[in-house]
Amino acid sequence: MTDILRADGRTPDQLRPVTIERGWSAQAEGSALISFGRTKVLCTATFTNGVPRWMAGKGKGWVTAEYSMLPRSTNSRMDRESVKGRIGGRTHEISRLIGRSLRAVVDMKALGENTIVIDCDVLQADGGTRTAAITGAYVALADALEWGRTKKFIGQKAQPLIDSLAAVSVGIIDGVPMLDLEYTEDSRAETDMNVVVTGRGLFVEVQGTAEGAPFDRRELDSLLDLALAGGITLTEFQKKALEVSA
Amino acid sequence: MTDILRADGRTPDQLRPVTIERGWSAQAEGSALISFGRTKVLCTATFTNGVPRWMAGKGKGWVTAEYSMLPRSTNSRMDRESVKGRIGGRTHEISRLIGRSLRAVVDMKALGENTIVIDCDVLQADGGTRTAAITGAYVALADALEWGRTKKFIGQKAQPLIDSLAAVSVGIIDGVPMLDLEYTEDSRAETDMNVVVTGRGLFVEVQGTAEGAPFDRRELDSLLDLALAGGITLTEFQKKALEVSA
Amino acid sequence: MTDILRADGRTPDQLRPVTIERGWSAQAEGSALISFGRTKVLCTATFTNGVPRWMAGKGKGWVTAEYSMLPRSTNSRMDRESVKGRIGGRTHEISRLIGRSLRAVVDMKALGENTIVIDCDVLQADGGTRTAAITGAYVALADALEWGRTKKFIGQKAQPLIDSLAAVSVGIIDGVPMLDLEYTEDSRAETDMNVVVTGRGLFVEVQGTAEGAPFDRRELDSLLDLALAGGITLTEFQKKALEVSA
Amino acid sequence: MTDILRADGRTPDQLRPVTIERGWSAQAEGSALISFGRTKVLCTATFTNGVPRWMAGKGKGWVTAEYSMLPRSTNSRMDRESVKGRIGGRTHEISRLIGRSLRAVVDMKALGENTIVIDCDVLQADGGTRTAAITGAYVALADALEWGRTKKFIGQKAQPLIDSLAAVSVGIIDGVPMLDLEYTEDSRAETDMNVVVTGRGLFVEVQGTAEGAPFDRRELDSLLDLALAGGITLTEFQKKALEVSA
Amino acid sequence: MTDILRADGRTPDQLRPVTIERGWSAQAEGSALISFGRTKVLCTATFTNGVPRWMAGKGKGWVTAEYSMLPRSTNSRMDRESVKGRIGGRTHEISRLIGRSLRAVVDMKALGENTIVIDCDVLQADGGTRTAAITGAYVALADALEWGRTKKFIGQKAQPLIDSLAAVSVGIIDGVPMLDLEYTEDSRAETDMNVVVTGRGLFVEVQGTAEGAPFDRRELDSLLDLALAGGITLTEFQKKALEVSA
Amino acid sequence: MTDILRADGRTPDQLRPVTIERGWSAQAEGSALISFGRTKVLCTATFTNGVPRWMAGKGKGWVTAEYSMLPRSTNSRMDRESVKGRIGGRTHEISRLIGRSLRAVVDMKALGENTIVIDCDVLQADGGTRTAAITGAYVALADALEWGRTKKFIGQKAQPLIDSLAAVSVGIIDGVPMLDLEYTEDSRAETDMNVVVTGRGLFVEVQGTAEGAPFDRRELDSLLDLALAGGITLTEFQKKALEVSA
Repeated sequence: MTDILRADGRTPDQLRPVTIERGWSAQAEGSALISFGRTKVLCTATFTNGVPRWMAGKGKGWVTAEYSMLPRSTNSRMDRESVKGRIGGRTHEISRLIGRSLRAVVDMKALGENTIVIDCDVLQADGGTRTAAITGAYVALADALEWGRTKKFIGQKAQPLIDSLAAVSVGIIDGVPMLDLEYTEDSRAETDMNVVVTGRGLFVEVQGTAEGAPFDRRELDSLLDLALAGGITLTEFQKKALEVSA
Repeated sequence: MTDILRADGRTPDQLRPVTIERGWSAQAEGSALISFGRTKVLCTATFTNGVPRWMAGKGKGWVTAEYSMLPRSTNSRMDRESVKGRIGGRTHEISRLIGRSLRAVVDMKALGENTIVIDCDVLQADGGTRTAAITGAYVALADALEWGRTKKFIGQKAQPLIDSLAAVSVGIIDGVPMLDLEYTEDSRAETDMNVVVTGRGLFVEVQGTAEGAPFDRRELDSLLDLALAGGITLTEFQKKALEVSA
Repeated sequence: MTDILRADGRTPDQLRPVTIERGWSAQAEGSALISFGRTKVLCTATFTNGVPRWMAGKGKGWVTAEYSMLPRSTNSRMDRESVKGRIGGRTHEISRLIGRSLRAVVDMKALGENTIVIDCDVLQADGGTRTAAITGAYVALADALEWGRTKKFIGQKAQPLIDSLAAVSVGIIDGVPMLDLEYTEDSRAETDMNVVVTGRGLFVEVQGTAEGAPFDRRELDSLLDLALAGGITLTEFQKKALEVSA
Repeated sequence: MTDILRADGRTPDQLRPVTIERGWSAQAEGSALISFGRTKVLCTATFTNGVPRWMAGKGKGWVTAEYSMLPRSTNSRMDRESVKGRIGGRTHEISRLIGRSLRAVVDMKALGENTIVIDCDVLQADGGTRTAAITGAYVALADALEWGRTKKFIGQKAQPLIDSLAAVSVGIIDGVPMLDLEYTEDSRAETDMNVVVTGRGLFVEVQGTAEGAPFDRRELDSLLDLALAGGITLTEFQKKALEVSA
Repeated sequence: MTDILRADGRTPDQLRPVTIERGWSAQAEGSALISFGRTKVLCTATFTNGVPRWMAGKGKGWVTAEYSMLPRSTNSRMDRESVKGRIGGRTHEISRLIGRSLRAVVDMKALGENTIVIDCDVLQADGGTRTAAITGAYVALADALEWGRTKKFIGQKAQPLIDSLAAVSVGIIDGVPMLDLEYTEDSRAETDMNVVVTGRGLFVEVQGTAEGAPFDRRELDSLLDLALAGGITLTEFQKKALEVSA
Repeated sequence: MTDILRADGRTPDQLRPVTIERGWSAQAEGSALISFGRTKVLCTATFTNGVPRWMAGKGKGWVTAEYSMLPRSTNSRMDRESVKGRIGGRTHEISRLIGRSLRAVVDMKALGENTIVIDCDVLQADGGTRTAAITGAYVALADALEWGRTKKFIGQKAQPLIDSLAAVSVGIIDGVPMLDLEYTEDSRAETDMNVVVTGRGLFVEVQGTAEGAPFDRRELDSLLDLALAGGITLTEFQKKALEVSA
């Protein structure tokens, strides 16, 4: 299988080059500019002491996320959702996915009554923007939690992070399962799957869609294998980025 | 595993009672009032000759769907999205899921330049509204296609339906994988998965989410087994409903 | 005049078949699925202890209503108001009419600081949806008040219902005054009037509109006669529906 | 009955002072600044050659209206609907009423494929704004039609105006039927009715509402008597205003 | 330069006829109907004791403004912003300009915790609507402050008004700097500038825009000269209007 | 005057460090990531052959711009305008300013029937975002025009760029006129002015606002002097960025 080479020279089970510029933003409590090849997402974390009113008094925190694409992040310009006056279904869906995924690795009791909002703004898009966003969001989140600890909003012994979190896309193209699709691959894929995994190799989200033809159990299994392997590599990149003091 | 009984007396691998009232609407080209236990969804199909302008001239059709809940379909009343002036993320997400799933079993060339809109309105909600909607939508779609053939908008030999389509939810509750969750079960599930399958047993959508704790590969496998079995039973219900002349 | 027969065989002063399925919804505090011929409206009542902030502390309650049509309740599909992002004038107008009418038969002091919202969702439309909605809403309201009494939110001796309430449309077609117009009649009517009456035969709303030609005093009088007679029959149907214990 | 005097010294069957400044706007094809006592409404008519696309090719015209209140036309300031981002139910309802009423006195075939939009902007409000708006709108409409004839958009022999149109409110206060309610009267009325009549004394709209208690047939009759008499007087004011060349 | 005459016979440095009808509105705390030639703007001031929650407890007041044009104030009808569901950029910009300008002459401490909203509604537009609005708004504001003093919401010795405020447009047409442009002049101007000045001859806002060609320092200077002179004359008109007791 | 040093060590007439990363975006027809100190704006230009329908057939092009801030570009997070469902006044105002300014240096006839949209997205904000946006937008525009020439959408001899364009803020702080204010300076300024100038030293926009106290002619003059000098330096930066082949 690894004899097949893709347009950019990658083998089917290879990620695009990954870079994580931690602390890109001078003002956010945590931030990372992450790139998966040409895909670039700026993730910023905003830490607020306190929670929305409907959650107050339960001793628990809240983590949420918003995803958006710059109008010319893509090959042809899209209208701004602010100008259209409404958020599209895809944006909503991805924002919810990111928030839900992050919450799966946060112990809300350990976080205490604090709120973290992660903004994931796609500066350049070439496929895999939601998976890059989740992978970068985790880094921004980790830094924001550290900031909260430094400011004593989070207890010194509290461990709000249960596990690390990364995400990757996989898909079947011309019958071959492939890892980390770029835009032109994504458009041709028969089946497309986004998988969110923890550093310990557990699943947080599995979203597989038959874009072309329905897929069978064996194909599903091979995609999950690829995704788990990709998740391990991404976890390594995150670890390296977080090792350096920000 | 089947020794465990649920609140309503079902075994873990048992569906709720399913009813499909085909042709419920006197005016739509296809319709079905489907119930999964207390969950009731009215699915109507609108067949229009022609396609949106951006698709015209390609000899291909289009199928789309809209999902909505009546404000008091749920236990406590929700504000109407029309009154709020915007559609929520969940509604968007489910509408997109239903449309995408239906398109996976329709041959757009065979459909020709015709458009079918499926409206899925939840009259009463007790968990599994999106899966009931997809299962009922297939019946409404099948009737609308038949209507189109009768009216000669679709060629006599054309076979727009590639396969049948059904959907079911599965989840892990107290460590036990269970089929077709009702609302109280859904709220307690650690992992929640919606699976859309064709009559031939292929996957169209797999959407698994760790609501409580991340899940491992073995748990994922057992959920997929349950869902495939549930899909076979739902397919039988659909066949029976469609056997009778509407 | 009664020698004239309409398309469906009715005499000019005859209602369409009326059915009222009380308690249709398993979760609402009061509900009724009412049909006037092919017109079907699901009315649900939501009882909430307490009133909106601006009304608090006056010892009085509040009753309001929302009307909406399913997109394919009509012969050709309408766009959803939630998708358009705004409520149309007709929807607003009818919601206000229903709420205002219901309030005319409720003693707000006897209701106490409780709020009742009546949702009237048209599942199928064939003329007279607003009058069917009002007639069904009264039944849902009566049950919700009873529920409130059972739950002790309303005092045991309080009599919040001053009178019963029903509504019917009347119109002049080819010079003949007719009761309870179905859609094709409504489209042809020169004059169209919706009349809301109490069980005691008093007027709550009289809304007459010259769709074709202005009408004179004599025509107006004959329409009011018809409407009062129709109101009496509808009141009987409501009584029967409410006699049975829900 | 005429022994009773109102707060401003009027008898129950007396209108407030009425003034009509025809041609108030230098730029509109027709206009009138009308006052009913302190209520002042600026009505402008915009004549456009051609009709909306959905009406084209039928040889018929279209007349529509929009009603709005300035934020400080009332005693306490209201938020602008443009700022709120949505038009309220009351505004919608009155705009529709004005348009529907005007169309009842226009022969759309004689108008030809021309569109007239009447804007009714309330500069100062003291009750009866919708009836003043209709009465003033008729004057603006008449002038716009004359303009269209001068510009040859309307045939020289065409008679688009079938009849003249005026409107007045009536209501029952402390059991006494009264004509042309000002704001403080309107707030106290048990029953409130707006009646739109033609110059020939025919009804175009009758909208009666029980604000306090339901009303009986006899009360309804006395209100209609008052309204018809008021309509005759208003028609005289319109005639005088239109006699002078604009 | 004064040898050149404009279409309406004015010299380049001459204002159009200015009228200020103070107290036009019977219900507002301050009001003025101002005209600059055919441009007519109704300015009303609403005085409210108290400030928005985010300002409370600081002992300071707030002044804000909203600008809007009637749909047929212009030569061809514009759609209403309330109907479009959003406020356009130009409206926003002018509302902000008016509010900001007024605040520059109000001592918020002397105003105390009171809020004044100035509504500027353009009834007829022929260029210079924003400058007429500001000039009229000042008169309405002055009266509203006087009302607040009479009602004792403002201390007897407090002097909330620091200075008076007027505004005028200037522009370069065919190389000639001109004062107070009417619409046809404004459309032809190479450079267009709105200048807000105080009675003492200080600048509050200078907004110059090269509509046609960029302008040099000398042109800028001549425009500022004209504007300062125009401001003096407008200040005289305001003084006269305010001398008379309202 | 130059003895005074600011918080960051600059003299009053000194710009912050300026960097221009031309061609930052891989997909846009022109782009620049510009920084004025900590303020960073990503400017992308989208070139489209053809013009909006209302402009077609006149042989002229169109240039427009949209400005937006990322939610966490600022020190505390702002809600997204897409989530709020409406664009704020400030955003509207700045978008209009950028577009208007750019159009002042483009010969629309030489551009031909082509449209250029410049998106200015603020990634990090520390004062002067609109002036940085204009200065960067010019670079993106220049490259997009060059792209259009290469693609033959613009004639080989056509010279659409009349002049270059840069912008800078100036303000008076504690009585001292200062160039290029950062956020903390901007908040303290008595007078704040944004000036858009061409490479030849002509004014395109002059927008001065008395934030604290009205300003006199002499102060205005000193601010204009500073701005013209700053414009010259920025023009140099642009030249250098554009010299290198992209």
